[in-house]
Amino acid sequence: MRRIKEIFKDRKTLLPVIVQDYKTKKVLMLAYMNRDAFELSIKTKKTHFYSRKMGRIWQKGEVSGNIQLIKKIFIDCDNDTLLIEVKQKMAACHKGYRTCFYRQLTEKGAKIVEKRIFNPKEIYKKI
Amino acid sequence: MRRIKEIFKDRKTLLPVIVQDYKTKKVLMLAYMNRDAFELSIKTKKTHFYSRKMGRIWQKGEVSGNIQLIKKIFIDCDNDTLLIEVKQKMAACHKGYRTCFYRQLTEKGAKIVEKRIFNPKEIYKKI
Repeated sequence: MRRIKEIFKDRKTLLPVIVQDYKTKKVLMLAYMNRDAFELSIKTKKTHFYSRKMGRIWQKGEVSGNIQLIKKIFIDCDNDTLLIEVKQKMAACHKGYRTCFYRQLTEKGAKIVEKRIFNPKEIYKKI
Repeated sequence: MRRIKEIFKDRKTLLPVIVQDYKTKKVLMLAYMNRDAFELSIKTKKTHFYSRKMGRIWQKGEVSGNIQLIKKIFIDCDNDTLLIEVKQKMAACHKGYRTCFYRQLTEKGAKIVEKRIFNPKEIYKKI
């Protein structure tokens, strides 16, 4: 893909990436990509991100197997945010929900509005 | 709303906010809120963001009139990203498109995949 160097000016550039289910349009998560993570995502058609906390690239689903197959990539008007439509295997959230946005903020606080579809203790037990 | 100080630890905390159309589920834009912008958004039920470039809070649509009425707010599992469902007046993008993500990245480069629904020169001519 051309334009990579226009989008990721240098190897340190980190951009927020919104991940959305390509069919239901549910927003699944937000993570960050650097140029290497973006290139790896394009090459493998599976989302890879850069974690500042871990200081390395990680593949979504590398532990849980809940990978994201890339369907479409969009870029915003300011060239500083990506939107990726994916086919999500099982669930995006490490807490066991389809989406990381499983809590709605209400006047009474945060309320869980999604069903948990897997038990994180089962999936991540090897860690 | 409670929990504001849990979400925005201090007045400098900036969180990315994904804005999504509450009906079509189209992702419209990404911008950033600090605590003051969040409080103002809750109070007015209209999205307000903090711009690092301008060094101030701005209301979405303050110039164009294309405001966003807040329907629902979600928070992610890490408490560091918000997702807001809105009723978008006219269009979200200052370039005249419904969404800021009006370009798809393809092997041949960025391709416009949305219809422009207003002429920015008309809307922003007073600036």
